Amino acid sequence: VKEKDLSVVISTLEEEFNIYKEVGGESVPIHCQDVPNGLQKNGKEAIQPTVHPVVIPKNQFCVMSLDPDTLPSIATTLIDVLFYSNSPKEDAANQGLDCIKFFSFSLIDGYISLVMDTEAQRQFPADLLFTSSSGELWRMVRIGGQPLGFDECGIVAQISQPLADSDISAYYISTFSFDHALVPEEDIVSVTDMLQHQRKDPAAS
Amino acid sequence: VKEKDLSVVISTLEEEFNIYKEVGGESVPIHCQDVPNGLQKNGKEAIQPTVHPVVIPKNQFCVMSLDPDTLPSIATTLIDVLFYSNSPKEDAANQGLDCIKFFSFSLIDGYISLVMDTEAQRQFPADLLFTSSSGELWRMVRIGGQPLGFDECGIVAQISQPLADSDISAYYISTFSFDHALVPEEDIVSVTDMLQHQRKDPAAS
Repeated sequence: VKEKDLSVVISTLEEEFNIYKEVGGESVPIHCQDVPNGLQKNGKEAIQPTVHPVVIPKNQFCVMSLDPDTLPSIATTLIDVLFYSNSPKEDAANQGLDCIKFFSFSLIDGYISLVMDTEAQRQFPADLLFTSSSGELWRMVRIGGQPLGFDECGIVAQISQPLADSDISAYYISTFSFDHALVPEEDIVSVTDMLQHQRKDPAAS
Repeated sequence: VKEKDLSVVISTLEEEFNIYKEVGGESVPIHCQDVPNGLQKNGKEAIQPTVHPVVIPKNQFCVMSLDPDTLPSIATTLIDVLFYSNSPKEDAANQGLDCIKFFSFSLIDGYISLVMDTEAQRQFPADLLFTSSSGELWRMVRIGGQPLGFDECGIVAQISQPLADSDISAYYISTFSFDHALVPEEDIVSVTDMLQHQRKDPAAS
């Protein structure tokens, strides 16, 4: 179908089929974000909140901290990652389409929090960054197939409540365009199953 | 009471009283995080998840983005904020105890997301950073009176589900030590009420 008709086609077929797109080798259900308002106002559709598609990249992430006194020691690497990591050459060489590059640096009342994938982590001196439970790796669930609107409500709740019910710990990081959840590496299979189930049958979740 | 006895005192009095601490002029309920395990294993207490105390600082935040091509134009300011903003002198002069300094810079697949308070925002050139709905300001709810453990589950869900039920949009930012929610400035009163109600009567939430 034509690119411009895709959303209408999906919203039509959605009634009858479960629609998936392949993301990094995993089938992820896709739902239309662009259903005209008229459709959503009719009957049962109106009370179902939009279930956002998710993307589960292959790379592994770590959540780390750093003694603020040692910040000068990583300054060069940090500046390198922040300002010089977007060259197309590096992108093509080091990461496939099934990875999401995500690097976050937060300064909160004097303490430092970092989120990065294992590839970025290797650029930093190993002895300065620490995790709380050593070596724990996290997988990302990015919520939304296209940038989320500012007025969307309950996007994180759609994921956080089922994860809490399943006793799975998670980090949530909302950014300008997307919401992200980080879940423990060992839970990613059950999280993927849960999300696929939720997207097949939103009413049951 | 002595500082070291505070948690025991709170856990004892909690049975009979609602305990508040004043945070930035607003009364925020406080619950003990250090209840000995023995207490939590008895009867009804065991099935109640810990309801984490919250802190609601007075400062206002913005969630912004930036054209990656203009990143060099803010590089000096960014380096200044990241590496030189922790001097005690500035802390004392510019922020009271009822503010939480929070600055976050994220680089995600080539796009940039920034979260900062309005004070930090004033350091940046006004024409380069943009918000999605212009001028929207957010208030922070920091979850946890002391750093949260890695193994805690459902912390964000405790807040995100009631906010979603009330149709309040929010950003969630988990860091190494705390979870944070950003809610629209105009909703902070109803969010505060909701959180206080939740903490008075966890079973009803």
